[in-house]
Amino acid sequence: MIRAVFPGAFDPVHLGHIDIARRAAAIFDELVVAVYERPSKNVLFAVQERVAMMEQAIADIPNAWVGRYYCLTVDYAKALDAQVIVRGLRVFSDFEFEFRMALTNRRLTPEVEMVSFMTREEHTFLSSTTVKEVAELNGDISSMVMPHVQEALLARFARAGGLAED
Amino acid sequence: MIRAVFPGAFDPVHLGHIDIARRAAAIFDELVVAVYERPSKNVLFAVQERVAMMEQAIADIPNAWVGRYYCLTVDYAKALDAQVIVRGLRVFSDFEFEFRMALTNRRLTPEVEMVSFMTREEHTFLSSTTVKEVAELNGDISSMVMPHVQEALLARFARAGGLAED
Amino acid sequence: MIRAVFPGAFDPVHLGHIDIARRAAAIFDELVVAVYERPSKNVLFAVQERVAMMEQAIADIPNAWVGRYYCLTVDYAKALDAQVIVRGLRVFSDFEFEFRMALTNRRLTPEVEMVSFMTREEHTFLSSTTVKEVAELNGDISSMVMPHVQEALLARFARAGGLAED
Amino acid sequence: MIRAVFPGAFDPVHLGHIDIARRAAAIFDELVVAVYERPSKNVLFAVQERVAMMEQAIADIPNAWVGRYYCLTVDYAKALDAQVIVRGLRVFSDFEFEFRMALTNRRLTPEVEMVSFMTREEHTFLSSTTVKEVAELNGDISSMVMPHVQEALLARFARAGGLAED
Amino acid sequence: MIRAVFPGAFDPVHLGHIDIARRAAAIFDELVVAVYERPSKNVLFAVQERVAMMEQAIADIPNAWVGRYYCLTVDYAKALDAQVIVRGLRVFSDFEFEFRMALTNRRLTPEVEMVSFMTREEHTFLSSTTVKEVAELNGDISSMVMPHVQEALLARFARAGGLAED
Amino acid sequence: MIRAVFPGAFDPVHLGHIDIARRAAAIFDELVVAVYERPSKNVLFAVQERVAMMEQAIADIPNAWVGRYYCLTVDYAKALDAQVIVRGLRVFSDFEFEFRMALTNRRLTPEVEMVSFMTREEHTFLSSTTVKEVAELNGDISSMVMPHVQEALLARFARAGGLAED
Repeated sequence: MIRAVFPGAFDPVHLGHIDIARRAAAIFDELVVAVYERPSKNVLFAVQERVAMMEQAIADIPNAWVGRYYCLTVDYAKALDAQVIVRGLRVFSDFEFEFRMALTNRRLTPEVEMVSFMTREEHTFLSSTTVKEVAELNGDISSMVMPHVQEALLARFARAGGLAED
Repeated sequence: MIRAVFPGAFDPVHLGHIDIARRAAAIFDELVVAVYERPSKNVLFAVQERVAMMEQAIADIPNAWVGRYYCLTVDYAKALDAQVIVRGLRVFSDFEFEFRMALTNRRLTPEVEMVSFMTREEHTFLSSTTVKEVAELNGDISSMVMPHVQEALLARFARAGGLAED
Repeated sequence: MIRAVFPGAFDPVHLGHIDIARRAAAIFDELVVAVYERPSKNVLFAVQERVAMMEQAIADIPNAWVGRYYCLTVDYAKALDAQVIVRGLRVFSDFEFEFRMALTNRRLTPEVEMVSFMTREEHTFLSSTTVKEVAELNGDISSMVMPHVQEALLARFARAGGLAED
Repeated sequence: MIRAVFPGAFDPVHLGHIDIARRAAAIFDELVVAVYERPSKNVLFAVQERVAMMEQAIADIPNAWVGRYYCLTVDYAKALDAQVIVRGLRVFSDFEFEFRMALTNRRLTPEVEMVSFMTREEHTFLSSTTVKEVAELNGDISSMVMPHVQEALLARFARAGGLAED
Repeated sequence: MIRAVFPGAFDPVHLGHIDIARRAAAIFDELVVAVYERPSKNVLFAVQERVAMMEQAIADIPNAWVGRYYCLTVDYAKALDAQVIVRGLRVFSDFEFEFRMALTNRRLTPEVEMVSFMTREEHTFLSSTTVKEVAELNGDISSMVMPHVQEALLARFARAGGLAED
Repeated sequence: MIRAVFPGAFDPVHLGHIDIARRAAAIFDELVVAVYERPSKNVLFAVQERVAMMEQAIADIPNAWVGRYYCLTVDYAKALDAQVIVRGLRVFSDFEFEFRMALTNRRLTPEVEMVSFMTREEHTFLSSTTVKEVAELNGDISSMVMPHVQEALLARFARAGGLAED
């Protein structure tokens, strides 16, 4: 049995993430979507929120579940007896970052394999940062995220707007 | 059961290829190393030679075997009921080529998934073209290919040298 | 009045080319789609065929017409009193090639401006080379080219197949 | 009539920006240089200062004027009935950023076109960040910005230096 | 006599830096490893610590010594009568950054030459940022830095951990 | 004493090559510009012509001379007791090619160092291929090559034109 881990900050989860999760779950026996608790850059959503949004997003994938962690990704994978780490590749800057991560992981933990999925063409432009920037300026994000994530973003930025109007 | 296809020209197989094959065979149930018969650029070795060198190279991987094909890679994968195409990524120009291939394949045959493995750091510089160029100029290729491939290259270029002396 | 030239080999024209032509014709007063007669790599279609396929492809764009040329693109633009050369950008290797061409053109003819349009996401993978490779191996190209181009490709490769059966 | 918007933070405007503005104004009927009010990274100059420096910089381009905005760039363009957004491309990392922005904009507002101008070779190294870094360390920026911008930078960093000596 | 400067933040020095220093010292008469005092991003180690770690790291290179500076690198090189600035190249994003720096330096100070060394394959993944991230999460960094640097990192993050447990 | 080798096909030498040669000769004791006899792609000029054009181009650099070779570049460098191979970097695709070459050379001959010089901004677009393409179409190459190379190109393409008129 092959268990795979799909790690990320998921701040918030967008349609590109869900597509990778679905495709990975189709070729591995079990998929753990692993939410990293404390990314180095500021997050918009707390880890509990990011986990909850992801759980709703992948609820219909039977062999997938959501975990959270705060350690090296390879150590989390080893703790779960996972043999594979799954990553999505969109663009060149992703590639370089992923390449470094893959080489670092391999040196730290050669027994965990890292495989990459190329994103779909309609998601190449999509990143959590883009989603947040467009939502903050009242742009339409309905083609980028699921409805429950769109609501969470609107609520978050409306609150910010409300405070700003005081 | 997940069957994966690892396609290429393999003219000739080098240590980077074998590393990818070994890692892919570790996470998928069955691996078919698929030798493409007629690449667009000129090949040094005939398809029978490329298949034979590959069969010797992966003889110790129990769940892997060598095939050959002349059609779209996705059509070969479908004909074998393979769900996955495996590719190695070394460098940026690979990335772009692979990205295009992945998007084209997805449009042609969405049911076949394509996953990429990042090459090991000691193989990032390695390509069949480099191997041939170094061998042709009598450079030492013992850290790049298996001994039986080294012999085949020496024989090929020795013969070329012999002809040139006539 | 701004006249723009959109140059290329167009061997054959695909949907990505037509999209760029349509978008350029929307913002410039007149668009000349300029078929380069003798590209350095081998072409599948003769220049008359490439021109005819393009004329059919852009017949419904009222302010666009098809020309052919065999000289520096900037000299062709100058001869037509065109102020602008239009190019499409898909991927990084395009970018570098286009950058070099833009700098070379500017040094040769600073009075002709070169502007780039980013390709649509559904065409990022599309190139004339990909179209020909897929068509040669009997893949489905109906989402890549217009029907009259598809027919021309099928006819070309069927004939090749027919000859091969002799 | 084609109206084009050239958006940016312009913190501060440098010679590369002015070159793009001049070239865009030569092929479109009207050019609005649009200063984005609140970029995500810290700015050295307030929006009023950035607008004033730009107005002085393009004062001699008859069909160009300076605007300021705080919304999605495509929404600003639509509000102005502009059909085109103009961008400059210097290097690969620009390309990727611009590509993402173009695809995002197209999804949000397909009726606004985005076109890119390749920077001149003597400006490929030039960015507002470089200008500020060199100025902060007392390097000579006279070949990078116009004299009034150079004065503004010297004044700003002199004041900073003065404060630091307290 | 050719004196070369090898500048950086060195926060902290890793094996990739030492390799470049050793190789540069082999072909130039004298090498000054120059620690930049105040990089724009936050540093983990104070400049005195970074200098001390570097001095220990290159103690066995007879024609190399460590300096510190806070001005333009080219001005520091000129003040030392150095003719060459040495840089290491690992990956594409390095390349772009270095290219910009080289062009900026050349414009500022054409009499100082900048040369680049390609990093060894086993160090392509290595950066000070990676070292710090892995160390912070208790990963094994013994193949990335010298023992005295490893101790300094462990001490730093142990103290941070201790504080965090209060 | 440090002897450096600057290898290339030089078909033909252009101003970017000469700039690199001049800069390398300024920091190394002796520079050998090494003309590779049989590049894999077709050359326009025979090796004797390429050597002669280069000798004229660098005649005024006192510590440089021209050699020719047909073996691995590192083997040629070793045969000359050269410690350094010099390369020019213009653009990203150069970078990747050079990176592979550097890693291959290092594996073959670790005692020979390879250093890279970033090209000047006014030469980033310049390549022998561009020069030949522009010259073939009667474009002005006077800002790209020295007068004696321009004459050689005109003579070569005039002869081709003359034949074509028969």
